[in-house]
Amino acid sequence: MDRAPNDIEALIAQMARLPGLGPRSARRLVLHLIQRRDQSMRPLLAALDRVSQSAQTCSQCGNISTAPVCAICTDTRRATGEICVVEDVADLWAMERGGVFKGQYHVLGGTLSALDAIGPEDLRIPQLVDRVGNGGVREVILALAATVDGQTTAHYIADALGHTGVKITALAQGVPMGGELDYLDDGTIGAALRARKDF
Amino acid sequence: MDRAPNDIEALIAQMARLPGLGPRSARRLVLHLIQRRDQSMRPLLAALDRVSQSAQTCSQCGNISTAPVCAICTDTRRATGEICVVEDVADLWAMERGGVFKGQYHVLGGTLSALDAIGPEDLRIPQLVDRVGNGGVREVILALAATVDGQTTAHYIADALGHTGVKITALAQGVPMGGELDYLDDGTIGAALRARKDF
Repeated sequence: MDRAPNDIEALIAQMARLPGLGPRSARRLVLHLIQRRDQSMRPLLAALDRVSQSAQTCSQCGNISTAPVCAICTDTRRATGEICVVEDVADLWAMERGGVFKGQYHVLGGTLSALDAIGPEDLRIPQLVDRVGNGGVREVILALAATVDGQTTAHYIADALGHTGVKITALAQGVPMGGELDYLDDGTIGAALRARKDF
Repeated sequence: MDRAPNDIEALIAQMARLPGLGPRSARRLVLHLIQRRDQSMRPLLAALDRVSQSAQTCSQCGNISTAPVCAICTDTRRATGEICVVEDVADLWAMERGGVFKGQYHVLGGTLSALDAIGPEDLRIPQLVDRVGNGGVREVILALAATVDGQTTAHYIADALGHTGVKITALAQGVPMGGELDYLDDGTIGAALRARKDF
């Protein structure tokens, strides 16, 4: 990149720092954008600018939104009394793509982690306790990762909500769709066996 | 993406259409940008905006530039009388990363292709002939892909420049650095054998 003009070099460097991109893919992207300025660069700029100005965090659930309260929280059909607790917005989007859950969410913004010194007050756990305490919640579904940190967080939340008497559930563990036993780790097979059901 | 707000959805759709990105990596990118608005989104917006406004094609060589004539063409130290002919700007950048070539470039903007109905007048071949005809050029180095279209283009250019008497060379073909014979195609091995040299 010795001789690419400075502005272009700076853009490539910016791009190369984004997740999933490196210097090579950033160069390719920037060239593409420059060579298709009207079809690609300008619409992208406009879309980025709109999002940069409007994106905010939903004050109720922590989802990313273009309004103070997100579209899911304002949708009365989704006020089913079920709250699905997820680690981050990417997980919320993944749940939505699944299309099965019809209630509301609560985005923690991470998991408890002794290693990274992330405690309950760094996450949106107090807000969750308040939200459940305010009533109208029938069930809290813990959709957290099946990792040590994820499960520690799940147990902590279950404890913190214990006094409210709300029903607390967690995603089932088992064999994923299309999963071949041969390629599954032993932990998953064990969990699926313990949770076996009538056929 | 059912429930991501519309502006954000639109941005993800824009991103997903860029080369090397798909819906999944676009979602990841957009989330990253929104969650790091000040460190990532705003600098990227500013850099994109600058390039969108300033990027143009060098009128002499076809390189991408932020000025009417690019930094390589205006650098008098590079007026060595050597012109390296490349297919596109990505190839020019690749040559520059190599750091060996110290002359100037000529970017064709593609290769001749009967299949895609790309003829000489669709490329910057007439400009190359003019440039060589204007004098001051000692050698034209054809750095085109070792593909049928690349080599057809090379032969066409050599013919078109025949009357100028300028020296015309092409990149050597052979075993790439770090290349193991076992993994090389037969064509490359044959070319490397025919072009063998004293050791």
